[in-house]
Amino acid sequence: MRKDSTFKSEAAFISWIQRHFPQRSKGLTLGIGDDAALVSVPTGHELILTTDMSIEGVHFKSGVHSPRSIGHRALARSLSDIAAMGGTPRYVLVSLALAENAKQSWLKEFYRGLFKFGRRFGVAVIGGDTAVTPGPTVVDIIVAGEVPRGKALLRSGAKPGDRIFVSGSLGLSALGLRLLLSRAHVRNATDKAALHAHLYPQPQCSLGRFLSEHRLATALMDLSDGLSIDLRRLCDASGVGANLFADQIPAPDIADRDDALKLALHGGEDYQLLFTVSAKKAAKIPKRFGRIPLHHIGEIQPSKAIHLISPNGKTRPLKPEGWDHFARRSER
Amino acid sequence: MRKDSTFKSEAAFISWIQRHFPQRSKGLTLGIGDDAALVSVPTGHELILTTDMSIEGVHFKSGVHSPRSIGHRALARSLSDIAAMGGTPRYVLVSLALAENAKQSWLKEFYRGLFKFGRRFGVAVIGGDTAVTPGPTVVDIIVAGEVPRGKALLRSGAKPGDRIFVSGSLGLSALGLRLLLSRAHVRNATDKAALHAHLYPQPQCSLGRFLSEHRLATALMDLSDGLSIDLRRLCDASGVGANLFADQIPAPDIADRDDALKLALHGGEDYQLLFTVSAKKAAKIPKRFGRIPLHHIGEIQPSKAIHLISPNGKTRPLKPEGWDHFARRSER
Repeated sequence: MRKDSTFKSEAAFISWIQRHFPQRSKGLTLGIGDDAALVSVPTGHELILTTDMSIEGVHFKSGVHSPRSIGHRALARSLSDIAAMGGTPRYVLVSLALAENAKQSWLKEFYRGLFKFGRRFGVAVIGGDTAVTPGPTVVDIIVAGEVPRGKALLRSGAKPGDRIFVSGSLGLSALGLRLLLSRAHVRNATDKAALHAHLYPQPQCSLGRFLSEHRLATALMDLSDGLSIDLRRLCDASGVGANLFADQIPAPDIADRDDALKLALHGGEDYQLLFTVSAKKAAKIPKRFGRIPLHHIGEIQPSKAIHLISPNGKTRPLKPEGWDHFARRSER
Repeated sequence: MRKDSTFKSEAAFISWIQRHFPQRSKGLTLGIGDDAALVSVPTGHELILTTDMSIEGVHFKSGVHSPRSIGHRALARSLSDIAAMGGTPRYVLVSLALAENAKQSWLKEFYRGLFKFGRRFGVAVIGGDTAVTPGPTVVDIIVAGEVPRGKALLRSGAKPGDRIFVSGSLGLSALGLRLLLSRAHVRNATDKAALHAHLYPQPQCSLGRFLSEHRLATALMDLSDGLSIDLRRLCDASGVGANLFADQIPAPDIADRDDALKLALHGGEDYQLLFTVSAKKAAKIPKRFGRIPLHHIGEIQPSKAIHLISPNGKTRPLKPEGWDHFARRSER
């Protein structure tokens, strides 16, 4: 960190966190400050564990993302994994490799963004690790959640004939990033929604829990890398394929409809839920869950191909074009 | 990664891990491959959660540490935190921000080192995140362990009059790093032990469990940053101070005794255990735990100062000089 830092030691930093973000939580025996944290898992529940990294220059960019947004987004990625299992997030550990030229104010704002957002989900930050790195900042957010035993929803349960649903809007986050990178002015409600979707995504934990508690979904995952690649992953895990109805996919409300569809199919970081429901139970899926619209966008097929069907009946294979960290197929 | 990579996608990489390191573990419901992992915690037990980062250029250096050693050491740091609570490590998540110029062989060797070492502790690698970074490689290792409810040993229980113990040898890892950096030849058994201690440290999980099960220790922590700073942390958490007997500290067997003592006091990464025992129970601490010697090195004092007492009776205050990631007091 730069010289303006007032944290003279790791102990001073931990003390700042403990003062500003007191952690109380049912089930929490021991939080930040010892060698490790101690928690209880309620009887009859399983523990969900997930971790997600956010890297400066890859997942966020200085000058584009504020430290508050970076803290929010980093936590959202991991919370969304808990939503994707139908669970309830409970505990968070934050590993932060902080660029040595980062200001102390950056660190404080990052934590404020993360803690403020975490409070809305009732999660407690119970530990982590902090170090200074000669390279770009790397954030790793670990979330532990819980789910009643046997109720977790996996990617692997989709069956031919199941209906495919998504929550919310797709492609908004990618549109928001495009606006930020082009430094375009916000012109309308779509632009505003897109910026918000990108900077402050909202994982769908309540919806995930609803689907799990009522045993409505046969398979569930979150949309982090883009519908085309994430649906491919769900289909691979289930050994099936899919037909998608192009006009049912909730694409951004922009003039260029081809562009809108591309954003919805391949744009990532929406953190909405993708789930499949048996034909019998499909009628039980409401049009809206609270304020979040739910869209029936396709059907699971026995053959492994994924096809996109246009309103005119034209069918074309859908290639996965979302984000893959090894192939680096798309840049964001 | 470089072009020699044969991992064409994240899916291919995950598949490689699943093929080479099949994960079976009691309590594991779901491992790598879905949105998150699912585990059970046995009735009457609490869950221990910890995470530790290892950063290229900070915690390890290319050309000094082999990828196998880096995998081993990264896991050892987190396993040692579980040992420091008196718990049993069970599950591991691996977050890896891999430098874009890293070779695929590096990645494979890193995982081999990590998995081979993990098997010795019976831990299962159940998840993680992998991404390519424009900066140095950053590894974050999350370990979940378990401990019977109420049996975890904290830093905060030391009382005046308690005896202070450490396990094994101190300063060997720092000596080993010095040898590696100076590219000195291995001349004797001490050099050999020092290199091994640095490259392949052994967390003391069995000892931690022994102290917890038999309720022998009033406070327990692991020595990761150096005795002088870690003892200060234990004393701060317990609201006490300490006297250390300089000639009882298990320093490296090298000719320069002042240098040896400095290494033992301020060298980090030994991953031995530091614990306190009431005067009444001190006799129950064996001279050796298996092959690991246990040393009575001092006593807890009511005043908060920490003093070092020489064999000639000379007493001097001991300043914490280990590693602090914010203050960057020492380089390794």
